[in-house]
Amino acid sequence: MARMTLEELADLLEATVIGDKKTVITGVAGIEDAREGDLTFVANPRYRSKLDTTGASAAIVPPDVEKAPLALLVTPEPYVAFTRALEVFHPRERPEIGISPEAWVDPSARLGKDVSIFPFAFVGKDAEIGDRTLVYPFCYVGDRVRVGEDCCLYSHVSIREGCLLGDRVILQNGVKLGSDGFGYAQRDGRHHKIPQVGIVRVEDDVEIGANTCIDRATMGETRIGRGTKIDNLVMLAHNVQIGEDVILVSQVGISGSTTVGDRAILAGQVGVAGHLRIGKEVQIGAKSGVHSSILDGRVVSGIPTMPYETFLKTMATLKHLPKMREKLRKLEKQVAALTKESGQSDPEEEP
Amino acid sequence: MARMTLEELADLLEATVIGDKKTVITGVAGIEDAREGDLTFVANPRYRSKLDTTGASAAIVPPDVEKAPLALLVTPEPYVAFTRALEVFHPRERPEIGISPEAWVDPSARLGKDVSIFPFAFVGKDAEIGDRTLVYPFCYVGDRVRVGEDCCLYSHVSIREGCLLGDRVILQNGVKLGSDGFGYAQRDGRHHKIPQVGIVRVEDDVEIGANTCIDRATMGETRIGRGTKIDNLVMLAHNVQIGEDVILVSQVGISGSTTVGDRAILAGQVGVAGHLRIGKEVQIGAKSGVHSSILDGRVVSGIPTMPYETFLKTMATLKHLPKMREKLRKLEKQVAALTKESGQSDPEEEP
Amino acid sequence: MARMTLEELADLLEATVIGDKKTVITGVAGIEDAREGDLTFVANPRYRSKLDTTGASAAIVPPDVEKAPLALLVTPEPYVAFTRALEVFHPRERPEIGISPEAWVDPSARLGKDVSIFPFAFVGKDAEIGDRTLVYPFCYVGDRVRVGEDCCLYSHVSIREGCLLGDRVILQNGVKLGSDGFGYAQRDGRHHKIPQVGIVRVEDDVEIGANTCIDRATMGETRIGRGTKIDNLVMLAHNVQIGEDVILVSQVGISGSTTVGDRAILAGQVGVAGHLRIGKEVQIGAKSGVHSSILDGRVVSGIPTMPYETFLKTMATLKHLPKMREKLRKLEKQVAALTKESGQSDPEEEP
Repeated sequence: MARMTLEELADLLEATVIGDKKTVITGVAGIEDAREGDLTFVANPRYRSKLDTTGASAAIVPPDVEKAPLALLVTPEPYVAFTRALEVFHPRERPEIGISPEAWVDPSARLGKDVSIFPFAFVGKDAEIGDRTLVYPFCYVGDRVRVGEDCCLYSHVSIREGCLLGDRVILQNGVKLGSDGFGYAQRDGRHHKIPQVGIVRVEDDVEIGANTCIDRATMGETRIGRGTKIDNLVMLAHNVQIGEDVILVSQVGISGSTTVGDRAILAGQVGVAGHLRIGKEVQIGAKSGVHSSILDGRVVSGIPTMPYETFLKTMATLKHLPKMREKLRKLEKQVAALTKESGQSDPEEEP
Repeated sequence: MARMTLEELADLLEATVIGDKKTVITGVAGIEDAREGDLTFVANPRYRSKLDTTGASAAIVPPDVEKAPLALLVTPEPYVAFTRALEVFHPRERPEIGISPEAWVDPSARLGKDVSIFPFAFVGKDAEIGDRTLVYPFCYVGDRVRVGEDCCLYSHVSIREGCLLGDRVILQNGVKLGSDGFGYAQRDGRHHKIPQVGIVRVEDDVEIGANTCIDRATMGETRIGRGTKIDNLVMLAHNVQIGEDVILVSQVGISGSTTVGDRAILAGQVGVAGHLRIGKEVQIGAKSGVHSSILDGRVVSGIPTMPYETFLKTMATLKHLPKMREKLRKLEKQVAALTKESGQSDPEEEP
Repeated sequence: MARMTLEELADLLEATVIGDKKTVITGVAGIEDAREGDLTFVANPRYRSKLDTTGASAAIVPPDVEKAPLALLVTPEPYVAFTRALEVFHPRERPEIGISPEAWVDPSARLGKDVSIFPFAFVGKDAEIGDRTLVYPFCYVGDRVRVGEDCCLYSHVSIREGCLLGDRVILQNGVKLGSDGFGYAQRDGRHHKIPQVGIVRVEDDVEIGANTCIDRATMGETRIGRGTKIDNLVMLAHNVQIGEDVILVSQVGISGSTTVGDRAILAGQVGVAGHLRIGKEVQIGAKSGVHSSILDGRVVSGIPTMPYETFLKTMATLKHLPKMREKLRKLEKQVAALTKESGQSDPEEEP
């Protein structure tokens, strides 16, 4: 376990100390769980009052916090600094197990330097695994798959034949890449499988969550752009194209051939129809159902999607709908009576 | 296969026999599939008439059924009694295979009495597995994981490093516990991974369905309370806290740090936003989208959630919406004409 | 890689050549990616103009395309013909690995002719696997399971004890068949597991997508009918009955004991409550929530489901709801003023 003074941490995190620079930090913790020796943080002003009661020895805070009953590390980006502190006090474990004799590695596979292949991992023909990559138990790396350097494939990952991964890709447990796309030709009332002969390409610095499924292309590539982060239980169909630095939250589903632009954010359980274009920096609210393309930068929500402000108003009105219908009925009667009395004819009726 | 008289069964199930006590029962079956020798049951009054036509030799029924063309076992809780009968006639298989030499068990792991570890299971460093627990093929038990007594880990389960399970926990096939939470700090337009250094804690008597994913906490614990039952393909994010005896139906998704109170029930495909408090005994209808906290005992449904009665009325009105809009347009014209004729000014207009 | 003249292909695909019959084809590709030597296709009239710019050497087209700057293969069913061409140029790989000594096959299991069992596959007691079936790494075939001929079980498939598969069944990576259904009896405020003693039966020519879960029946069978195709991450609960040639798109969830008729189509993320009857040839739009049974042939969508035309109109009106409420308020005031002036009493008020 690491052990550092606040002064040393300030250097490392590019922060300024307020209070005792010699305070010794031995761990990190959330503001409510923190105890003596822990470094904690406050980014959200809502939680600032907890500085008065936390058991932590020091806290990372933004510049507008100037006083508190504990030592402070001041930085304009408290969350980023805290992330670094987590890395310092919880360095990622690097199992140095080499190539387990209990793994199955085809003789034609090419393994880089310092690769770790755990027991019960399977590496197929002509597969290629880059330097320092970890392959945990029960990973299936199919024939001709190429995995880059410094990747981590947690247990139960499947990468089917021919798929390509860049460097520093993290696949959480149970990710399935390159399963056949869902494509059938109808003939005589039956569904005939269309061969799915494309691949999945995953670019550098992508992370994919547990049990997420990304289908191979019918032809060509299903592509996940650099830096994109995908949560658990997401479904991406054949020939989907995801841009760079995109966020797909859990249980999102995207149908075939749809493209998603750079830095777009799709919240949980969103569904997107096929053959659409979701623009760059689009944001789509949770549980939305997307049936048409969306221009760059739009913030939308709902089934069907509408501008976010409209969505909020519409949702707020929804529960009044039964009352509105009652009122409408009453108004109709009143207006009919008034109209009759005034001798006017119905303005929409043909004379 | 067990073989019992009705009299013996009545003793066991704390029920009363109406009819021939010597009737021999050799199996259990649903009321439509049951044949000679089978015991069946009726709990729902809707299906009571099927007693007249079932092929069963006897039926478990509630006290208000007094006559039927077959022998009866009368009990105030027919469903519970039937569950016990199922256990008697279909005792759970207990493979007594011991520790397979084809499994990979780290020498530092501690295994209790009568543990069964199947071929191709992986048990990591300093892991601990309690008495009589079953670990099926392709289970990954990470370093420092602790699994209690009488647990059952079906095939393809993953329990990542440091996670803790109580006693009598059942994990169906493909459950993934302790994958990294979905947390990133934004810097320079890119997403930087926040180390996820917490764990998942699963208390006693929990059951978790196939391919469900529960992420480890960023710091601290993601917790599943005693007796909670979780269905297939559910997603629980980092630091979620689930109470005791909760029911989460399949494809539910709960975002980070949300808490769910004891005995709450979330129906299928419900989505819950992060940092909310769902009270005790709350019931949430299928496909609901929850964007704010819910008080104890409330029954809600919809996107957004509303009281269940309001939801039913609103949903019933929804399909009339286009007609309502037409009527509204017509009324506007009529009222405009009447107003003009009467010489009144628009009551909402500034003078 | 295959190499054929257009003339030979025309024979095979039952198409007519327009242009140079000696054109040599060495591959197939989408119309935008195609290059010299490639055969491409156009089915959708929208993409027809791309024939002018494609790099392909020939295209499969419907009869109403008579002229293009490349050779043509004319057929009434371009998509079907293209599927066949894909099969010709990308024949499915048939690994002929036999029974790997690294697999675990119980001595009591019965394996057909030319079966391939990969390393790290598990085949339990009295299991039976038909001729030419492929069992990839990390597949779990439980005790007494029966798998038919010419099936393909990709990696990480689980088929629990006693389940039955027909011939030519394809299970994509991570499919879980026969996990316990989600059934509990309530007693003293706790949930007591109901033994799930039934099975899953999968008929001939079914394909099931990655990480999809199908629970075993409580008693009897959960059944998937012949020719049905199921996408990724679908959830089918205990005792669900799916007819023949049904399409279930990804992330669909169907609750216990519901039946789905032949040739029905359920789009992505649809949820269906339990104990319902979905008729034959029913079509249900994406993200719909189904709370009641649906008659044969209906096309529905929405939460709750309504006829598709009503759904479209309702969805188009939804975003006008806040405006409608405002208008309604204004009308109420106007009508109140008019009523007062006219001396009429409110027609709904008791005198």
